[in-house]
Amino acid sequence: MSEQGERALPRVIIVGAGFGGLDAARHLAKVPVQVTVVDRNNHHLFQPLLYQVATAELSPADISAPIRGVLRAQRNAEVLLAEVIGVDTKARMVHIRERTDGEERELAYDYLVIATGAGQSYFGHDEWAEFAPGLKSIPDATAIRRRILLAFEEAEMERDAERQRALLTFIVVGGGPTGVEMAGAIAELAHKALARDFRHIDPTSARILLVEAMGRILPAFPESLARAAQGALRRLGVRVRTNAPVERVDAGGARIAGEYVPAHTVIWAAGVKASPAGRWLGAEMDKAGRVTVGADLTVPGHPEVFVIGDTASATQDGKPLPGVAPVAMQQGRYAAKVIAAWVEGKPAPGAFRYFDRGYLATVGRNYAVGHIWRLRFTGLLGFLIWAGVHIAYLIGFRNRVLVMLQWAWAYVTAQRGARLITLDEEPRGTRAIQRAG
Amino acid sequence: MSEQGERALPRVIIVGAGFGGLDAARHLAKVPVQVTVVDRNNHHLFQPLLYQVATAELSPADISAPIRGVLRAQRNAEVLLAEVIGVDTKARMVHIRERTDGEERELAYDYLVIATGAGQSYFGHDEWAEFAPGLKSIPDATAIRRRILLAFEEAEMERDAERQRALLTFIVVGGGPTGVEMAGAIAELAHKALARDFRHIDPTSARILLVEAMGRILPAFPESLARAAQGALRRLGVRVRTNAPVERVDAGGARIAGEYVPAHTVIWAAGVKASPAGRWLGAEMDKAGRVTVGADLTVPGHPEVFVIGDTASATQDGKPLPGVAPVAMQQGRYAAKVIAAWVEGKPAPGAFRYFDRGYLATVGRNYAVGHIWRLRFTGLLGFLIWAGVHIAYLIGFRNRVLVMLQWAWAYVTAQRGARLITLDEEPRGTRAIQRAG
Repeated sequence: MSEQGERALPRVIIVGAGFGGLDAARHLAKVPVQVTVVDRNNHHLFQPLLYQVATAELSPADISAPIRGVLRAQRNAEVLLAEVIGVDTKARMVHIRERTDGEERELAYDYLVIATGAGQSYFGHDEWAEFAPGLKSIPDATAIRRRILLAFEEAEMERDAERQRALLTFIVVGGGPTGVEMAGAIAELAHKALARDFRHIDPTSARILLVEAMGRILPAFPESLARAAQGALRRLGVRVRTNAPVERVDAGGARIAGEYVPAHTVIWAAGVKASPAGRWLGAEMDKAGRVTVGADLTVPGHPEVFVIGDTASATQDGKPLPGVAPVAMQQGRYAAKVIAAWVEGKPAPGAFRYFDRGYLATVGRNYAVGHIWRLRFTGLLGFLIWAGVHIAYLIGFRNRVLVMLQWAWAYVTAQRGARLITLDEEPRGTRAIQRAG
Repeated sequence: MSEQGERALPRVIIVGAGFGGLDAARHLAKVPVQVTVVDRNNHHLFQPLLYQVATAELSPADISAPIRGVLRAQRNAEVLLAEVIGVDTKARMVHIRERTDGEERELAYDYLVIATGAGQSYFGHDEWAEFAPGLKSIPDATAIRRRILLAFEEAEMERDAERQRALLTFIVVGGGPTGVEMAGAIAELAHKALARDFRHIDPTSARILLVEAMGRILPAFPESLARAAQGALRRLGVRVRTNAPVERVDAGGARIAGEYVPAHTVIWAAGVKASPAGRWLGAEMDKAGRVTVGADLTVPGHPEVFVIGDTASATQDGKPLPGVAPVAMQQGRYAAKVIAAWVEGKPAPGAFRYFDRGYLATVGRNYAVGHIWRLRFTGLLGFLIWAGVHIAYLIGFRNRVLVMLQWAWAYVTAQRGARLITLDEEPRGTRAIQRAG
């Protein structure tokens, strides 16, 4: 179905349209290649704001951009809604399953970029997943939103004081940026947005616990900033417990450092586990399942196979690169540059180097900690920088305006606009999609 | 748990927080009663814009308002997230099941207002529901959105020309306002928003059929307006077929007036069936399951039980009242007035009379038909009136601004912002909600 002229062009398959994959695709726009982006979903997801969907501030579509829309004008790119089920690196074929009707087929590639991201890791306790959902996708976020909002609804109807207390206890596991942002947002939801909405419970009495196994929260941040964030969390009413490993999670709560805390809602923001790309490639992996890549982000022995973002285990100056969006984006651009050099017969660029512009994490509304280059920020200034950076990287003018507007509204009223619980399942027919004809 | 002073107040239970129920509750704010609003969902749904969620223009939360938020300041009202499973009119008890943990219990009432709306009717062919979903709730709308968007995705990957054609055929059954608006919105989605997003199919070649069993579309509108709407639909690329009863719907398409049309997507906008309120009450019902009510909207023999909105079969001047939001709202206010009169010992108001301000229906962007009082509108003027009326009745300042903004964006760019397909199920744990402790 492709045009005749395109047939001879080298084929680049990019698996995953997250930050890394999408940036790789966009930087191949002017390179004489044929790009195919394969993703399990039809949308790019702006994961850094996913916690705001989980806490009823934004709608899922506000932080999603249809991949086809993003690549509309890039005539050398096409998009396939499919999941990868294997890679034959010898034959240079990707085995995919279409997500519409489940049809399986193979796609040939000359260059392959794997940017499939990461999922939750429960450190060998996958049975906890049911009780402590993680936050990686839109369905994860809307499930957490439902769980949080329903906890208040159930508490309102509960007569037993002890059960009511468990329903109003929220445990966030993991003191990284996601855990900190999640705990802050739940505290603001309970203590501000919902404060006057119930008749039999007082939402401001809700307990929010942030637990971290290590000695302090935000281990990737300078210690002074972590201390400032912890102070801001405390002022919001979040109890931070460090050196507090989670030893068990069940339907009734969690055991934390020897003590069982009855809690209806436990949210997992602790560990990540890479996607199964390593298995597909038969490549060397680290403990978290990330594929070990060389200095040019390719798999040893396969200079045509790139692994980037959270799926890759790359080191720089002896230190592992963090699993954050800027790393993935810079790696995506780098992979595009290497492919362009090969295709155009130019000398390959030097080894990949991550240029660290800084870190940011918010603690509720008004407060963020971070550093950009050598400057450290806390408080409202940090929050404004955080908001600016996130708006700038959000794809699509519409989403930017909508998110800004909803932030402004939430800021002024302390209300949440997306307090939607969908209790009934979507009708799906006999299959996700019916084969017509 | 209620305050002592409230115990003696008459108890009003309102079942359903749609247009009718919510207006009844709000008009009881200053009446010395204790109001309990029971709803299966936590949100009021602005149903007239549901088709825009189904066609990827708005997000679900934009047309939803949390019931608790709406009634926050009304201190004599409380909200219960529960479904009604029965009514004991003798003992004056409503039997409910909490939607959080499934606990069943009974609530005593002095006055009962039933405003539970209506569902789809397949005219005795419930087996069609699987293939031709209706549009009544948020999960319905997101399921239809997924089905429409996936049809284009599957067509893009399909090699068989006949199947591709079926995938790009959309049948809307029912020529009332919902069917007309739905067909117009699908045509604009296919012919404008998606026009340049695919590489192997041409979305502008999509066929959209609006089929109506009767002689013309919009039977409740004057014939000149219906003709104008039909012209506008034709200009958008919708084929309107009147006198075309649907005789069969299956996974492959639909048989319409003797002819089988292969189609992947069939959407049902034809018949409504009232909620099971009639069964709860053991009351007389019409063919569509609506409860026959007297001139004061109460059930014969039960002056303390009101049935309003789509659940009621009321006539005025020998004609049945239509199942539209203004009827429900006026009936809600009327029920509140009657209850207030009883409670305050004043004379009861006269029989309910619906004051008809007019009808409106949009055909895509820029065009609407309608009449307000005796004035008839078509075209852009009609559309602006339609937009103004809908914005005015949407609950919540935030939702108004967000919806206006998204309309403006869609108007200027012809794009759709909520093109989100969620393919994976939400993780739900072992139950919708875990009982804690």
